[in-house]
Amino acid sequence: MSLIVLLTDFGHQDPYVGIVKGVILGICPQARIVDLVHELPAGDIRRGAWQLWSARAYFAPGTIFVGVVDPGVGSSRRAIALRAQDRFYVGPDNGLLGWAADPITAAVVLDRPQWHLPRPGRTFHGRDLFAPVAAHLAAGVPLAELGSAVAPASVIRLDWPPVRQQDGIRGEILLWDRFGNLISNLPESAITALGPNVIFEIGPWRIQGLSRCYSDVPPGRPLALIGSSGLLEISLAQGDARQALAAEPGLGIRVFAGAT
Amino acid sequence: MSLIVLLTDFGHQDPYVGIVKGVILGICPQARIVDLVHELPAGDIRRGAWQLWSARAYFAPGTIFVGVVDPGVGSSRRAIALRAQDRFYVGPDNGLLGWAADPITAAVVLDRPQWHLPRPGRTFHGRDLFAPVAAHLAAGVPLAELGSAVAPASVIRLDWPPVRQQDGIRGEILLWDRFGNLISNLPESAITALGPNVIFEIGPWRIQGLSRCYSDVPPGRPLALIGSSGLLEISLAQGDARQALAAEPGLGIRVFAGAT
Amino acid sequence: MSLIVLLTDFGHQDPYVGIVKGVILGICPQARIVDLVHELPAGDIRRGAWQLWSARAYFAPGTIFVGVVDPGVGSSRRAIALRAQDRFYVGPDNGLLGWAADPITAAVVLDRPQWHLPRPGRTFHGRDLFAPVAAHLAAGVPLAELGSAVAPASVIRLDWPPVRQQDGIRGEILLWDRFGNLISNLPESAITALGPNVIFEIGPWRIQGLSRCYSDVPPGRPLALIGSSGLLEISLAQGDARQALAAEPGLGIRVFAGAT
Repeated sequence: MSLIVLLTDFGHQDPYVGIVKGVILGICPQARIVDLVHELPAGDIRRGAWQLWSARAYFAPGTIFVGVVDPGVGSSRRAIALRAQDRFYVGPDNGLLGWAADPITAAVVLDRPQWHLPRPGRTFHGRDLFAPVAAHLAAGVPLAELGSAVAPASVIRLDWPPVRQQDGIRGEILLWDRFGNLISNLPESAITALGPNVIFEIGPWRIQGLSRCYSDVPPGRPLALIGSSGLLEISLAQGDARQALAAEPGLGIRVFAGAT
Repeated sequence: MSLIVLLTDFGHQDPYVGIVKGVILGICPQARIVDLVHELPAGDIRRGAWQLWSARAYFAPGTIFVGVVDPGVGSSRRAIALRAQDRFYVGPDNGLLGWAADPITAAVVLDRPQWHLPRPGRTFHGRDLFAPVAAHLAAGVPLAELGSAVAPASVIRLDWPPVRQQDGIRGEILLWDRFGNLISNLPESAITALGPNVIFEIGPWRIQGLSRCYSDVPPGRPLALIGSSGLLEISLAQGDARQALAAEPGLGIRVFAGAT
Repeated sequence: MSLIVLLTDFGHQDPYVGIVKGVILGICPQARIVDLVHELPAGDIRRGAWQLWSARAYFAPGTIFVGVVDPGVGSSRRAIALRAQDRFYVGPDNGLLGWAADPITAAVVLDRPQWHLPRPGRTFHGRDLFAPVAAHLAAGVPLAELGSAVAPASVIRLDWPPVRQQDGIRGEILLWDRFGNLISNLPESAITALGPNVIFEIGPWRIQGLSRCYSDVPPGRPLALIGSSGLLEISLAQGDARQALAAEPGLGIRVFAGAT
């Protein structure tokens, strides 16, 4: 039984997600389909890349992730399928897949029409290319059959590495979630390397030490914690840190060791 | 294995969609259920009718579509089930189903309480009538058993035919999607009949020629293309045509042959 | 085949719901999963409690409901699993489950790490505790194995009892649905006990008699009816009663017998 996980920016107002599922089930009726996210802001590749990355380990080996945030559909951007850590990724080669699919052990470009819908258009590759390719993969077609092999290193990756500074580390806010928690590019290891008395500076806030859960501090107070994806998050207890800081992606955060 | 596809205006804030699924699975535990759309504007029959129409061909023969956009629930409007092109349609007879279900080869009114929930109310036929009827159909009950036969021609249809003019054709915008693409009532055949140098006029825009994908023109420029459902769409490259034109359903569009 | 029904305030913008499903399917691949609601206002326990209550009877015995509206995650609030009327409920002990799970026939606290994800965090018990516990339950682990038994009476319940008055009954609006229907805490039996000529007073509205469906009165007129969950609802024909009254949860409603 194959599991196909869908991530798109199609939203829930239009029939596009349902149509993709119809195509998948027409080719591979026994596939299980799980919706990861469809309410991505239109064209928000970075947020989609993070969501795939944060979710992938919670799905069993063999899972096929289909990512469709594809503002360049129909242009020269490549359509690809990847294998990484016993999971598969299908979608446009625009940075959406490369963060999650790491390290890539096999990559193909989807250049074989026999695995696509007949007469594919140039505006809806989610339906015409990615859904049928994922369904054939789920039905047992090997990755290498689906297209011509390309070098894993040629796949586009987005990257937001933290910057080491003399007395600490500088990161940035990548995105936020529904609760207004600000998710940064700083992994737990980068924080703990600074010792137990770490200090966070973001906008006008100065936060001392890591909390362990949202209710560790009084309502209305900011806190820093390692979020459920293993990255540093800045939150406001019983509030919305994103609103309080009017945060935008890219907002800087400085972390350094306090006095011991 | 039967596939049931749901389209409603129930939204995602309330438990109504989940309850419909509980009823279906209670009667036919092996049914597969796919969500087509639930975020229809409340009562928007036209948009729902288009969505069913644009999606139906991507689901395998035997699929059962349940459509519930039903502002007249509990009134004298009929509850019906239809067969068309080896697919089935269950819902209110208010125009929602007639565009997709064409030509209708069998139609029944849902007048047999043994296939409904016991003691059905008059406010939630999605739960009390349409879900159980669809589930019984999925479980193998023939359509003709579910209610009394009525004439296919008696089923309400909505229609938006293009208007032929001396030098071309006049259509209208039916709706838009999440990306702000304006979807018209003009099929590809009506456009190509006008020759290769076709011109589109909509609001203040005059667009020359069909594009093939959204990135065919520079950012900020309007374009016309045949959308993924086979209808003429007006878009704004990397923008939102609906906002740019403050478009409403019914906005006119004129298409005519340019100089050769 | 076990059915797991999910209710959360995770929304659809973030990958949290999908991750929960990945965890469930990793432990119990044959589980069926149905989404009840995920668009609850963040932390809105009362609305979630009502939704579970209104939906539960439409799911077959054996169904496992997972409710995650959990502002106190990681604090001292208990994590619990319950059995009531041959259905199961898993989630935080904060009032979310107690309205639906009534009467409770067995209750455990989730204090056995072997049924949780390894190294659970303190910010996402939906993923780390509730999803794996529900999946093990679906896979056949008895409730009594999942944690230490506690007294059913110790489970937190929210309650909004109507108040009897000399000439009738006083209730309150608990919430509203997408269509602006105001749902009260008054069950059908409390209304019918007042006889056939009942009068409703809410805000500036005075409504005589119960309607049977939304189209029983002319457009723009308020009406009272017994909604699909068996509670009194106040609606506006072809309108939005919640907007018209600027209603908030707790808005009072008085019901009394009219002259005969």
